[in-house]
Amino acid sequence: MNPFTSIRAESVAALGEQRLLPEIKRWLGKTSPAAPFGMGDDCAVVRASGKAMLITTDPVIYGQHFDETLSPRAVGAKLLKRNLSDIAAMGGRPLAAVVSLALDANTRIAWLRDFYRGLAAAAHRFNVKIVGGDITQGPVGFFGAFLTLHGEAAGNRIITRGGAMPGDRIFVTGTLGGSLLGRHHNFVPRLAEGVWLARRRDICAMMDVSDGLAKDLHSLTPAGLAPALCATSIPISAAARKCAAVTKQTPLFHALGDGEDYELLIVVCYRADLRKFERAWKRRFPRLRLSLIGTFAQKDRLPEGAVQLSNFSGYEHLRDA
Amino acid sequence: MNPFTSIRAESVAALGEQRLLPEIKRWLGKTSPAAPFGMGDDCAVVRASGKAMLITTDPVIYGQHFDETLSPRAVGAKLLKRNLSDIAAMGGRPLAAVVSLALDANTRIAWLRDFYRGLAAAAHRFNVKIVGGDITQGPVGFFGAFLTLHGEAAGNRIITRGGAMPGDRIFVTGTLGGSLLGRHHNFVPRLAEGVWLARRRDICAMMDVSDGLAKDLHSLTPAGLAPALCATSIPISAAARKCAAVTKQTPLFHALGDGEDYELLIVVCYRADLRKFERAWKRRFPRLRLSLIGTFAQKDRLPEGAVQLSNFSGYEHLRDA
Repeated sequence: MNPFTSIRAESVAALGEQRLLPEIKRWLGKTSPAAPFGMGDDCAVVRASGKAMLITTDPVIYGQHFDETLSPRAVGAKLLKRNLSDIAAMGGRPLAAVVSLALDANTRIAWLRDFYRGLAAAAHRFNVKIVGGDITQGPVGFFGAFLTLHGEAAGNRIITRGGAMPGDRIFVTGTLGGSLLGRHHNFVPRLAEGVWLARRRDICAMMDVSDGLAKDLHSLTPAGLAPALCATSIPISAAARKCAAVTKQTPLFHALGDGEDYELLIVVCYRADLRKFERAWKRRFPRLRLSLIGTFAQKDRLPEGAVQLSNFSGYEHLRDA
Repeated sequence: MNPFTSIRAESVAALGEQRLLPEIKRWLGKTSPAAPFGMGDDCAVVRASGKAMLITTDPVIYGQHFDETLSPRAVGAKLLKRNLSDIAAMGGRPLAAVVSLALDANTRIAWLRDFYRGLAAAAHRFNVKIVGGDITQGPVGFFGAFLTLHGEAAGNRIITRGGAMPGDRIFVTGTLGGSLLGRHHNFVPRLAEGVWLARRRDICAMMDVSDGLAKDLHSLTPAGLAPALCATSIPISAAARKCAAVTKQTPLFHALGDGEDYELLIVVCYRADLRKFERAWKRRFPRLRLSLIGTFAQKDRLPEGAVQLSNFSGYEHLRDA
């Protein structure tokens, strides 16, 4: 459905902000608590437990993260799930979100309703409260929803991107590439997996794959080291193969560069018992593939045959117009 | 300065996201802590004290909250101060913010640098850390910065908008109206005042005036009550008088409806000793005017001569295109 309409009665301008806000509360249903713990006061109040608070922010923008081929429900769900994937990547548990909207006054009420219903359904599923937000008029043809998500460590610690050492192993969940064929919105954020991993002492760093493995791996790589990936171990998705058939690129090209995989990239300590780790994973997550794709090596001692990551690029956010 | 350029070398596209991020960290200076307590990991980590966390979100959008007549530094400062005003309105203390940018790839690097420097200067002044964010490409001619600010109660309690009773007095700080002549960006959020007020037991509700007194007062008014304002007590700003001379509206029209005043609207309990309260205010804030502008009355017993608020309107966020 196209988010915009030329029929005034169908547009958010017909409601105006004053009547739109109670509608949004209704669309959000049980995921929208009463003020001041939800929408309706100057700030939302979230009960802090004394644990470190995790904060992440990611938007969905029309023309950038979705177009009219995606249902508004899927757009709303994607908005929350993108952010949930970041909480998962630190081994956190999500708590509460605020949503700042900028939209064309000609945005369709029915589109916005389904967007919020999709957001609410995802929030309900992952136990997140939508506690506040803002609505501002944007330019003609613009719809952007900017969500900030708050969470906390699920256990005693959080896992950052820092901390990889030479010899540490690199694992990735699921399969990679070809997200444009559907995965970019119908993924499941790896929250349970993240919490489980954060409780294991042999995990020393973690992140989610959002801009493509080739680009994201840089963020896990300490100075002086380089990732040594084995091309044949990289779990290439069926969608990546389908894309490759069309683009005439290799499936590996799509697996390393497409982005929006929302899988976990995991660094396991070089001292860890890998067989024990893999067995424990299989018992706990029998249906989610876990692949050992490489190790961290000293930069000047990269083993021969390792994937030349510089030949692949991830998603670059600021391209020329 | 116009935020956009047609000269590629001057645009953020010339840097690309990878080289832009370290620049932003540099522009933010000391207000940008190291990851994971700042930019650079999947989430930012904020140490929670166990007190209730306050969360608010407000953007600045080109063409909506500023245009090329405003300096980029002032835009960056306004972005933070708008949000600080919400923390002030609950008697809170600000802690940390994340900023999600959506921008045309032709955004000028120099403009963005000064925007972040203005943001950093305001963050430094009000003791806020910029702990994370996101950058996404937006449509041509678009610049929007969406900030989410976190704070906590400064004392034992926070002040919400609820809680006014019949007979309670309504006070407002400063003067109102004519914000377009400068106040919309050069205001000082009333943080110290908010903290001081939250510590007094005779304050029962509070909010900031952002959409104009006529509109915002509704949010403080419980069902069955109505605000009874005395027209001659409303502190009309010199700017409101200047605007009125041009628009041929009354100065009161501007004072009640212009919005972006960022003053505090305070409800004082009907049992409070008003002279004691006003004396204490004057001792603590000798340079900031405090005006008693009315009381809350039963809806059907509004005193004669009270300002007919329905004749005035505040800022409405979704107008027809």
